[in-house]
Amino acid sequence: MADAGRPLVETLTSDAEIALHFSAEAELSAMQTFEVALAQSQGALGTLSSAAVQAVDDRAGPSFRPSLDEMARGFARDGVVVPALVVALRKAVGEEHGASVHLGATSQDAIDTGLMLRLKAVFQILDRRLGTLLGQLEALAAEQGELFLMAQTRMQAALPFTVADKIVTWTRPLQSHRARLARLAGDMPLQLGGPVGTGASFGPAYASLRADLAQRLVLHDAPPWHSDRTVILDIAQGLALVAGTLGKIGQDVALMAQTEVAAIRLSGGGGSSAMAHKQNPVGAEVLVALGRLCAGLSGTLAQSMIHENERSGAAWTLEWVLLPQIAEAAGAGLAIADRLVSGARFADVSKA
Amino acid sequence: MADAGRPLVETLTSDAEIALHFSAEAELSAMQTFEVALAQSQGALGTLSSAAVQAVDDRAGPSFRPSLDEMARGFARDGVVVPALVVALRKAVGEEHGASVHLGATSQDAIDTGLMLRLKAVFQILDRRLGTLLGQLEALAAEQGELFLMAQTRMQAALPFTVADKIVTWTRPLQSHRARLARLAGDMPLQLGGPVGTGASFGPAYASLRADLAQRLVLHDAPPWHSDRTVILDIAQGLALVAGTLGKIGQDVALMAQTEVAAIRLSGGGGSSAMAHKQNPVGAEVLVALGRLCAGLSGTLAQSMIHENERSGAAWTLEWVLLPQIAEAAGAGLAIADRLVSGARFADVSKA
Amino acid sequence: MADAGRPLVETLTSDAEIALHFSAEAELSAMQTFEVALAQSQGALGTLSSAAVQAVDDRAGPSFRPSLDEMARGFARDGVVVPALVVALRKAVGEEHGASVHLGATSQDAIDTGLMLRLKAVFQILDRRLGTLLGQLEALAAEQGELFLMAQTRMQAALPFTVADKIVTWTRPLQSHRARLARLAGDMPLQLGGPVGTGASFGPAYASLRADLAQRLVLHDAPPWHSDRTVILDIAQGLALVAGTLGKIGQDVALMAQTEVAAIRLSGGGGSSAMAHKQNPVGAEVLVALGRLCAGLSGTLAQSMIHENERSGAAWTLEWVLLPQIAEAAGAGLAIADRLVSGARFADVSKA
Amino acid sequence: MADAGRPLVETLTSDAEIALHFSAEAELSAMQTFEVALAQSQGALGTLSSAAVQAVDDRAGPSFRPSLDEMARGFARDGVVVPALVVALRKAVGEEHGASVHLGATSQDAIDTGLMLRLKAVFQILDRRLGTLLGQLEALAAEQGELFLMAQTRMQAALPFTVADKIVTWTRPLQSHRARLARLAGDMPLQLGGPVGTGASFGPAYASLRADLAQRLVLHDAPPWHSDRTVILDIAQGLALVAGTLGKIGQDVALMAQTEVAAIRLSGGGGSSAMAHKQNPVGAEVLVALGRLCAGLSGTLAQSMIHENERSGAAWTLEWVLLPQIAEAAGAGLAIADRLVSGARFADVSKA
Repeated sequence: MADAGRPLVETLTSDAEIALHFSAEAELSAMQTFEVALAQSQGALGTLSSAAVQAVDDRAGPSFRPSLDEMARGFARDGVVVPALVVALRKAVGEEHGASVHLGATSQDAIDTGLMLRLKAVFQILDRRLGTLLGQLEALAAEQGELFLMAQTRMQAALPFTVADKIVTWTRPLQSHRARLARLAGDMPLQLGGPVGTGASFGPAYASLRADLAQRLVLHDAPPWHSDRTVILDIAQGLALVAGTLGKIGQDVALMAQTEVAAIRLSGGGGSSAMAHKQNPVGAEVLVALGRLCAGLSGTLAQSMIHENERSGAAWTLEWVLLPQIAEAAGAGLAIADRLVSGARFADVSKA
Repeated sequence: MADAGRPLVETLTSDAEIALHFSAEAELSAMQTFEVALAQSQGALGTLSSAAVQAVDDRAGPSFRPSLDEMARGFARDGVVVPALVVALRKAVGEEHGASVHLGATSQDAIDTGLMLRLKAVFQILDRRLGTLLGQLEALAAEQGELFLMAQTRMQAALPFTVADKIVTWTRPLQSHRARLARLAGDMPLQLGGPVGTGASFGPAYASLRADLAQRLVLHDAPPWHSDRTVILDIAQGLALVAGTLGKIGQDVALMAQTEVAAIRLSGGGGSSAMAHKQNPVGAEVLVALGRLCAGLSGTLAQSMIHENERSGAAWTLEWVLLPQIAEAAGAGLAIADRLVSGARFADVSKA
Repeated sequence: MADAGRPLVETLTSDAEIALHFSAEAELSAMQTFEVALAQSQGALGTLSSAAVQAVDDRAGPSFRPSLDEMARGFARDGVVVPALVVALRKAVGEEHGASVHLGATSQDAIDTGLMLRLKAVFQILDRRLGTLLGQLEALAAEQGELFLMAQTRMQAALPFTVADKIVTWTRPLQSHRARLARLAGDMPLQLGGPVGTGASFGPAYASLRADLAQRLVLHDAPPWHSDRTVILDIAQGLALVAGTLGKIGQDVALMAQTEVAAIRLSGGGGSSAMAHKQNPVGAEVLVALGRLCAGLSGTLAQSMIHENERSGAAWTLEWVLLPQIAEAAGAGLAIADRLVSGARFADVSKA
Repeated sequence: MADAGRPLVETLTSDAEIALHFSAEAELSAMQTFEVALAQSQGALGTLSSAAVQAVDDRAGPSFRPSLDEMARGFARDGVVVPALVVALRKAVGEEHGASVHLGATSQDAIDTGLMLRLKAVFQILDRRLGTLLGQLEALAAEQGELFLMAQTRMQAALPFTVADKIVTWTRPLQSHRARLARLAGDMPLQLGGPVGTGASFGPAYASLRADLAQRLVLHDAPPWHSDRTVILDIAQGLALVAGTLGKIGQDVALMAQTEVAAIRLSGGGGSSAMAHKQNPVGAEVLVALGRLCAGLSGTLAQSMIHENERSGAAWTLEWVLLPQIAEAAGAGLAIADRLVSGARFADVSKA
């Protein structure tokens, strides 16, 4: 559960299930999936012999695990892992068919496509959790929806409405974000452009190759987007919207749980080292923190739009540092929100 | 042209045509459009008498111009202009029918709906400018597209490609952003929820009223989004993507126009006070600045997702300060890019 | 009071007194101050004849007002106003001594030095306002300091303390920021480096010239900082700390003023267009918005650290757009805080 | 070297030596240092018996290692580790003297003070690395300083200057940042305020206790800063300035290393998976990324200024997530810059 080498705060703000898809192992594995599928597509289109495809399939696929230290050394040297990975894969495939690995491709093809494959898996996790959270909120609305609650505008009591009215202000954006994530997951694009993004290195069958490969990897066939990071920004926006809405829910809960307001009760809340009577709304606070974090991180990520010419190592590195954090924060937020809502009950003020 | 009271930098970074729609006058006028249309819809549904509707229509519409000083005093006092505006409109409409103005509505209904009406106009300007810029880029591609150009990856010469290959990396995202802005403009939602966003203040005909009013204002009928600012964030994202892509184009141009690279020539470039031989790529630099600015501003805007309970004055104010700037920056960027591209010619390196 | 052409929100978030120092007129005037003082220093060191100095002093000083339209056209063309300004000043000085204007200097010398001169004036305004606000807070502590108040930690009632204990958490950082601003104002550095920041264009007397000019302009003598924007970031940090602390005070006040908490009463608070009973804590909310705004703007400004080589037009433009906003937000915050505190009284809970 | 469970990009952007001080183990250990020293101070002032102090010293100090899983469970429950840690420490100390642990203190006292202790160690590492890097740059200036180099302003060749002139634009801000970090390290303040930051829980000897404890921990004696995060923002600013200046150096190097400019040669540069002739300026690019990252992260961190009342769990969590990243990025940047500079040589253009 706890990692002695990481900050304690990650106990709450990290997300092991999401993080798995941003691990070195997952990165390498997804790139290998790309490389094998590329060879298969090139085989299907007659660019590679079936023997070559077979060799790549057998020896460069999941059964082959490149040395992580070697890969890290390659990354440190080249700023990307692909050159080292391709060397390792070619060696694994053997002299005869080694050159059939990564044929016509460039690092970015493997990296961006691999990222899309991993993000699809991440979005599945988020979709499942959003489903669970929405279920919880609907159950809470079913149980307590008719209770009265004081609506608050501009930090002042406004007019009474119902718990159901409140909950719908949470579920409506979450449902819309869930639909957005599903749309984004269904549109994750293949990246295949070769060294300078023109596809020329793949020869005359480039268009067919891209279509075949996209279908094989269940990605969207799209022209190269090597220097246009709109896809990444839209994904980050989808994640930041989830975290932002959860932050808004956390803020609402923390405000309603204030001692003097007492409109909601939380279970399992946080103890204090100095004041035994206190029950701190820990989950609600962390949701606010994660929402503010993702807002800031996504604005910083947007700096990577300004990609120098055909490929920017600087913009790319910035992207790689930030996107996993945004995804983990959205994921951690959903896990926290789930626990928060499951332990929350609105006060029955009609009895008061 | 120049405003003595504003910073000189606004000569390049502001956009008078866009700014017009974020002026106090435009804000008030759009809110009056909302108030009149609301009365008309209430009349159509039988909530208001035709005499009342007529009175509102005649006296609260564009022919009535509230005192700006009065409105500013109201804003300073209330943090929103609507209470002062409603007082002024009711007085203008007269004692008999004054109460028919703003019936059942809350400030946010007028403000958010008015904003959507104004943003539609802003998006039309941007669409027109994107069309012009894309036309320029296509003309440039037609004229010079076959010239060779050195593709640059990671700040190093990579492989030659053509000017057409380069230009398509600019037009593709711009076309996609243009389509996005058109989609956003077509989806601008009505805001109508009353004091706490439940619509209860509009009575049993709320759903019909909302549908009628949306149609009347040519907005999208949508449930209240008073505390869910996804709409605003998506609009900001659309604008920041335009500014970001223009920033990327500016960065490319500045890199290609370097003395030692000389892959592109710019006309009308900037003089230096100390070095007469210099031609600074002013427009390209300003595009980079505007791209970075919008990235940062949109990340800051995302902080306003965390809306306390049913309405947050803090989150709202943040939104109001930032959104006009983001729109102006996108608009100014398009104007600058247009001048930059019209004066740019790629070098014919085949002759070198 | 109100400007029909600007957004209504600026009624609260802009600051006319501060804005004056960021106006085109103030920019030009400060640059003229630099140019005249430079000639005087060059005269004192024997580089210019006394006749030349006299001519510059007489005709390039405050009595000469360059055409604003001409300056704006120059800015639009060159991305800086200095080339156009120098042409105008040289023309005003006349053929014989015109070349004595801006001798050896570069645009950045005039721009950065002019900015420092204007910021000193801005910091004086802020210092005065901080003094007034601290006085108000001390008076409030003197009047109500002994009242009990519930301290709140993590959004929960913690233990009672006193109003004086609360107020000291506001005054302590404000005093420290005031001292910081005074320190920064006393350290505002001269910029004098010539075209590429080596001072070579000023000849062998460069060191003496810089010292003389710094003394004349009451600025700190410092080596060129043309591509090192630490000075700007420290100034922005000073301003953002003021806005951030005011945001914290605003947040505290909004929380204490909640209907259910009622620990503080505000006067003159904001009306609602739909709920006559409401008193919104407008000033407190705007302080929160300005604090969050400045946090975001200062993070965006920090992107301008990455200054390409000896001078970056992109980084510079970003700086010019952001710094005035940060200063105005800090200024507006102080004006709002002053009104907020003057109308605030803590509840006497001992009576409850 | 490589961690299979972390993103590959961390090979370049993380910093194991710095990270060690932000690990759960380091956090706990620093808090234990605080708790033991607090008991010692209370002993010195006669609040605790020497037997109690002895017991705490013997059993709550470094020889006691609390169960990490228990601590993580505590953190997840309470949003801070201190309640669980205090329980564990009191149990370790034993029934008789257990209550002498954390006497009068609150979680924040242990957390903030512990952070200051760890940051002092981090700043020592950074100081050492800054010294090494400055040494490298001075050696390079000594070796190549007299070579000519084309100064570049606004992305255009300006005038020739020397390599020494260039290097001084890098060393000057680095020296100033080094002095700033030393100043910050010397000023790291003790946090000791008790539950609501008034010190009341420590009794009448509070002032003496704070002075004694500060001296014991070699920290600066300061009034409580529990809800005023200026200290944290100044530390982050110091770190972001380092990263920003390194980003500027990286940008300069990447621009000078461009194929067409060739003003600097880099060794050990990055290979490409598709273009064997390429040498990518990996280190320089990563420095730009880290500079932009820290700018954004520090702007996001500044949101935590808006601390609700006497203690904000949300603002705190945000701080805890961001500060370690900013420190690691500054540290990683220094390590990368060191390798970059050691392998860089300016071209001798006088021979060209």
